[in-house]
Amino acid sequence: MNPMIENVGGSTIRALHARRKPTSINLGMGEPTLMPDMRHFDYASRWVAENGCRYSTNIGDADLREAIAKHYAYPGLDVADNVCIMTGSQEAVYIAIKTLLDPARDELLLVEPAFPVYAKVAEIEGIALRRVVMPESSGFRFDADAILSALGPNTRMIVLCSPCNPTGRVIDRAAGKKIADALLARSGPPVYILHDEIYRELTYTPDAAEFGKIYPYTIAINSLSKSNAMTGMRLGWLFAPADAMPQIVKMHGWATSCANTYAQRIAYDIFVSNDLATQQPWYARQREGALGAARDAGLECIEPDAAFYLCLKVGAKDTLRFVESLIDERDVVAVPGHIFATSLRGWVRTSFVGPMDAIREGYRRIAEHARAWNREGAVTLALR
Amino acid sequence: MNPMIENVGGSTIRALHARRKPTSINLGMGEPTLMPDMRHFDYASRWVAENGCRYSTNIGDADLREAIAKHYAYPGLDVADNVCIMTGSQEAVYIAIKTLLDPARDELLLVEPAFPVYAKVAEIEGIALRRVVMPESSGFRFDADAILSALGPNTRMIVLCSPCNPTGRVIDRAAGKKIADALLARSGPPVYILHDEIYRELTYTPDAAEFGKIYPYTIAINSLSKSNAMTGMRLGWLFAPADAMPQIVKMHGWATSCANTYAQRIAYDIFVSNDLATQQPWYARQREGALGAARDAGLECIEPDAAFYLCLKVGAKDTLRFVESLIDERDVVAVPGHIFATSLRGWVRTSFVGPMDAIREGYRRIAEHARAWNREGAVTLALR
Repeated sequence: MNPMIENVGGSTIRALHARRKPTSINLGMGEPTLMPDMRHFDYASRWVAENGCRYSTNIGDADLREAIAKHYAYPGLDVADNVCIMTGSQEAVYIAIKTLLDPARDELLLVEPAFPVYAKVAEIEGIALRRVVMPESSGFRFDADAILSALGPNTRMIVLCSPCNPTGRVIDRAAGKKIADALLARSGPPVYILHDEIYRELTYTPDAAEFGKIYPYTIAINSLSKSNAMTGMRLGWLFAPADAMPQIVKMHGWATSCANTYAQRIAYDIFVSNDLATQQPWYARQREGALGAARDAGLECIEPDAAFYLCLKVGAKDTLRFVESLIDERDVVAVPGHIFATSLRGWVRTSFVGPMDAIREGYRRIAEHARAWNREGAVTLALR
Repeated sequence: MNPMIENVGGSTIRALHARRKPTSINLGMGEPTLMPDMRHFDYASRWVAENGCRYSTNIGDADLREAIAKHYAYPGLDVADNVCIMTGSQEAVYIAIKTLLDPARDELLLVEPAFPVYAKVAEIEGIALRRVVMPESSGFRFDADAILSALGPNTRMIVLCSPCNPTGRVIDRAAGKKIADALLARSGPPVYILHDEIYRELTYTPDAAEFGKIYPYTIAINSLSKSNAMTGMRLGWLFAPADAMPQIVKMHGWATSCANTYAQRIAYDIFVSNDLATQQPWYARQREGALGAARDAGLECIEPDAAFYLCLKVGAKDTLRFVESLIDERDVVAVPGHIFATSLRGWVRTSFVGPMDAIREGYRRIAEHARAWNREGAVTLALR
């Protein structure tokens, strides 16, 4: 057995999700409850009926890659050969980190709070990991100076999940430019920025940095999962500079061969029919509703610039035990903040993708549970 | 950059495939030319229209895993939790080798001729690889004694691709039993048999060993790609003993999250409607036709027990240069045998999935090219 895999943890989010009951208010998993647009499936089915369902090239279908390259128009990353189609953004993250870093020498700098996958991949691959944590005191905002100060001599990649899962923060343009300029001025081999922008199409602020637009060593990763309610379609993509792409495509080829042909036809239809951000207004309304619900429940929250999460402050130091008892005693599933960053201990992440009534009731119960928890905590403390 | 990935080769088959012209007789890629049954797509689309296209669990949909476990009925591997749904058999192979072996200690024994992916994965992961090559003198048949003699003290996995890509040989029941019995009698930690049985449903002999039926430490891997003409659907699965499964599922989760939900619905419909081997009779007829075509062209071949390949002896020592000139001068794409084993130098692999006229003409040209090549080779030799 590979000890690197034995020693790495599994997904806490998935484990909590598995504990839900049929009655549970599920604010846990990060996936849309909206339905996908079946017209794209109809298109893909017609295509397969005519052409079969054969392998694509390792890098993916040329027409889809061209449509994606054109849509985002990242300078220097704007031709089809800068795009590799992947089995969801998860494979893209895995392959990018595994391929571009040398475990014997290179270091990954992870900006937290962040989704746990980046750290887990580094751990599995034996890649040294440095974390720079955005603190509660600044509202978990991306701080360019803090990120730049955390760079070490062996840092070869910075992972920025912006829009951020879980906080919903985006790195603003000024901060993005500061980081890009500083990295370009650095001597030595280039530092890649892995910009995971999977929530890009669900952004509620105009001031969001796009590293693909300002920094040539950007690995930009995205997918249809969140924007088009297709987490199960496992269709993502990765932008990379021309010189990095051959190794990425080779590793992708040996790991999974190529992306799903049917899913690539769906993606192609979405891009050519410009159906990428059509669900955004619904999420914007959900966000308003969730913010109101948090306010009414008396819960402190991080006002999200993007994505479909609201982080709520519950104050419990043992956040895992808090969410476990929240399931057992109040039948509400939420995700403990500490799995995203040490600074999110005492917070929980909720998804605002469900019916607003359920969100309101869920927040009410979370607030109630937090009050009870903190009272008991205070009592325990007093008794010591 | 990860040097293990930089140093590993890419896919020769894919590279040759990319050199084909519109006029080429393509005997290269290993994928069906038959069309998939669209009724399964219709079922999956109806399901998604009703239920959405959401993540499955990391291990895959329970109903599909149960259907697969029941269908194969491998003793001790016969419940849903012995099956993990993967992104094609390629991901299954990658995850199984990466997870179950410790690069610091364990060794992989690869029985060749075999598809190159196993060796490439071992190379990328830094796992020691030992090869045992079935020679031409015994018709490339699986030889249990030779395989058992090749076991080293650190061997923890034997990879058996049976039915074999490229030879079409299957390991027979007596040889399978001999290997299983010997491994069970061995002291020390168990040796896994990775039985890649992706061509299982296209077998033309009743005497094929199934390790899942006779050996408890079997990792059996299969997919819909070849049996149901869906290489592009990227839907495979892996059987594993209960104690190995949690680590496999965890690694699968961090690499690709979960298999495609739509593809899982297609697979479910195929299993419950018993549509797994319905294309086999067509392949059996193609096999007869291809054997006749080889005979008529005067080419020596390996009579396949399974799959859709015919290996032809062309005698060229530099088999890669032979197939390259075969494309350039005769407009025929074939795969050089040496990429599968040293013993297949001087052979080419052809797929008999296309129209029989094209196969006949392709074989005629291969024979002609081999005669010219060997004449020139003889001349070059005489001139030295």
